[in-house]
Amino acid sequence: MTELDRGMGAPSNGVLPAALPPTARPSTALLTDKYELTMLQAALADGTAHRHCVFEVFTRRLPAGRRYGVLAGTGRILEALPRFRFDDAELGYLEGTGAVDARTIDFLSGYRFTGNVLGYAEGEVFFPGSPILQVEGTFAEAVLLETLVLSVLNYDSAVASAASRMTSAAVDRPCLEMGARRAHEQAAVAAARAAVIGGFAGTSNLEAGYRYGLETIGTAAHAFTLLHDDELSAFRAQVAALGTGTTLLVDTYDVRQGVVNAVAAGGTGLGAVRLDSGDLGSLAVETRHQLDGLGATGTKIVVTSDLDEYAIAALAAAPVDSYGVGTSLVTGSGAPTCGMVYKLVARANAEGVLEPVAKASPGKPSRGGRKSAARRLDAEGRAVEEVLVVGDDDEAVASWSPASDDLRALHVPLVVDGAVDSRWVGAYGVENAARTHRASRAELPRGARRLSAGDPALPTVELSLD
Amino acid sequence: MTELDRGMGAPSNGVLPAALPPTARPSTALLTDKYELTMLQAALADGTAHRHCVFEVFTRRLPAGRRYGVLAGTGRILEALPRFRFDDAELGYLEGTGAVDARTIDFLSGYRFTGNVLGYAEGEVFFPGSPILQVEGTFAEAVLLETLVLSVLNYDSAVASAASRMTSAAVDRPCLEMGARRAHEQAAVAAARAAVIGGFAGTSNLEAGYRYGLETIGTAAHAFTLLHDDELSAFRAQVAALGTGTTLLVDTYDVRQGVVNAVAAGGTGLGAVRLDSGDLGSLAVETRHQLDGLGATGTKIVVTSDLDEYAIAALAAAPVDSYGVGTSLVTGSGAPTCGMVYKLVARANAEGVLEPVAKASPGKPSRGGRKSAARRLDAEGRAVEEVLVVGDDDEAVASWSPASDDLRALHVPLVVDGAVDSRWVGAYGVENAARTHRASRAELPRGARRLSAGDPALPTVELSLD
Repeated sequence: MTELDRGMGAPSNGVLPAALPPTARPSTALLTDKYELTMLQAALADGTAHRHCVFEVFTRRLPAGRRYGVLAGTGRILEALPRFRFDDAELGYLEGTGAVDARTIDFLSGYRFTGNVLGYAEGEVFFPGSPILQVEGTFAEAVLLETLVLSVLNYDSAVASAASRMTSAAVDRPCLEMGARRAHEQAAVAAARAAVIGGFAGTSNLEAGYRYGLETIGTAAHAFTLLHDDELSAFRAQVAALGTGTTLLVDTYDVRQGVVNAVAAGGTGLGAVRLDSGDLGSLAVETRHQLDGLGATGTKIVVTSDLDEYAIAALAAAPVDSYGVGTSLVTGSGAPTCGMVYKLVARANAEGVLEPVAKASPGKPSRGGRKSAARRLDAEGRAVEEVLVVGDDDEAVASWSPASDDLRALHVPLVVDGAVDSRWVGAYGVENAARTHRASRAELPRGARRLSAGDPALPTVELSLD
Repeated sequence: MTELDRGMGAPSNGVLPAALPPTARPSTALLTDKYELTMLQAALADGTAHRHCVFEVFTRRLPAGRRYGVLAGTGRILEALPRFRFDDAELGYLEGTGAVDARTIDFLSGYRFTGNVLGYAEGEVFFPGSPILQVEGTFAEAVLLETLVLSVLNYDSAVASAASRMTSAAVDRPCLEMGARRAHEQAAVAAARAAVIGGFAGTSNLEAGYRYGLETIGTAAHAFTLLHDDELSAFRAQVAALGTGTTLLVDTYDVRQGVVNAVAAGGTGLGAVRLDSGDLGSLAVETRHQLDGLGATGTKIVVTSDLDEYAIAALAAAPVDSYGVGTSLVTGSGAPTCGMVYKLVARANAEGVLEPVAKASPGKPSRGGRKSAARRLDAEGRAVEEVLVVGDDDEAVASWSPASDDLRALHVPLVVDGAVDSRWVGAYGVENAARTHRASRAELPRGARRLSAGDPALPTVELSLD
């Protein structure tokens, strides 16, 4: 049997169906590792599938040297959840390949998540052990969400965490996301969204603009200059079409001549010039001097070209007005994924009583039992500790709320009895998350924003209710 | 104006439309950087939009120390191309946000790519300067594809390049892709596809199995053991449901006892045990010894847990039967994206004559003019050079074919007059690409497969037709 024969989703001639192109499938249910379905099959067979369970998402450590992580992706999970359905295409595939048995197919055909999800608000900072998401329901309904939840949170949070360091380094200068070409085309949309949550001012990605109402930016590439007979013709064409407020890319041939041409085409009211190569710091100084000398004192300087948080910090003293960031942003600036895991922490026993559970694998410690979480603040409102609330009494932990002002509770409800809270999704959710991040980062101790390697900005401590 | 108001794609209450969920949109046209549309607007205004153009995709360098790259993603581009359409949703968004003018909207509404694309066969290895894709058409139709083309090739090739090193290190032992949770959920599907092109035997990702007819694998996680009252009950339930051929995960509590329980549940005919933590090398030796002692001499050992090509190579002498690889595969094993660029290399002048063009930015050299490509082989059929065919006569380069057996031409037609060649898409395309990769890698000099850092396995040389 060839690979082609095995694939039920692929027609026998290897050509894709025109009606339902493969990257535009409405169901998110197969964005799942197969073992979730085989576990389901075995648990349906012995009855444990219906045991009440609590799963938690957390990371055991931050990327080396990072002071904090930034949670992003929550809204995207909530957008994907109602579409986590096994319809004819999905069921036909699973049946046809013999992936699971008839009882499991039958269960999946009626699958709807009816449980509860709570978690940190999107945009919140997190630390090792922070229970950033908690999924509660039967084993059957909660186990199926593992891969989708982790895919979204691990990628989006990696980008938001990098973005936050960059906007921190840029201080008041806007950072603009331009990394679409360095990420999978759909990951790029998520990256733009995560970048804005981390403080970016806009994105070059039109699909992200469309989906999430983000500000989009961009004017021209080197190809536009090369298309024309000479640079001045190209600049004149661009200004004629896009107005004098446009940004002209001046490094196709010679920056100095490029700036002369730019002002010749756009006048002293030209919006901006963009530098995309060379030693950006000294080039910015020369270009600023040149622009001022030509009378274009209001013309801004945008720099792009392999920037990361360190390069941005190094340009702090240069006369740069905004930063365009690509590769390093969408690849998490050295940490392209987070190490988040989705772990079963409590489950009902045969008598229906919830019990804490934890594995004992070497080097991968887990603490059993449900956790609540809070951030402890000092008298000035500065964060001092990440507090995990634990205890033998599951209900006491679940219903815990801070009794004093020095603790800020971190869990918010996201899904209640299967119903998604719409405050966290769409464009509004992104705006909310960006606001959450600004406030959460501002609350951190000053050292948290240092770019140099160091320990997490807050220690994670336990508060036991026992 | 708030971000919410600006986003035409986002309804005013911030809640997403149920009918067309945002990650399931049929059009790929907005997976595009805005500057492509603003360049189009300016070029339509001055008439240069209709100049005939040749764009080429290449990388200036391989990731540090890598000997070769592996091209992947071509089939996905061809699948996305027919869906690169500006329909009501896309046009409404662009018009509503004022992104481009009415003439541009009008052009986009009828947009169909009618040009030609040729390139290296998917799965082929590449080197610095290799012209892996060539897009030819008017400026207007070709410039719009830049972001989509680069997003797909940069991510998919990063994964395939890492995959090839891993399967090379694993020699004859199967490698299994399990990284979905460490990548954006749609990138994960592309990663599974790219992994199989790079020699992986299967994937845990069901959506990838569905779309591309890939073999899917997976049985159980720690959660399944924790769900049960004890490990033996869990193993018995799994064997009852999935058969004795299943793989039991034995490291939830204590590996030694886990192996005893595994054989107690599955008998000496048990399919496999999986080790997911600890020192895998010594653990595999002990486990093999223990299994053999219990009479389970045919039971295989699968190892997972932060493997990369170096860890796989280090396990060569251990009694391991297959490798499950996650994080490091889907993040390109230290190189999460390729540095591929999409550059205008030739365009018609005002008289309609095609001329070579190139920018002169410092540190980012480009060679103008269309390129053809071939691999030079020695008498034993071993690759010795990557040959770029160049010359002043564009037609001569375009129609070049090798005159002797020592040159293997590398360009194949992918799109002819806008029509996609279906040999490269779907499940068949993946099978084809995996076969291409095996043959292409086998042709490389022996040193190409060393994992240690070094120069590209082949030098890139020019063959001038002038």
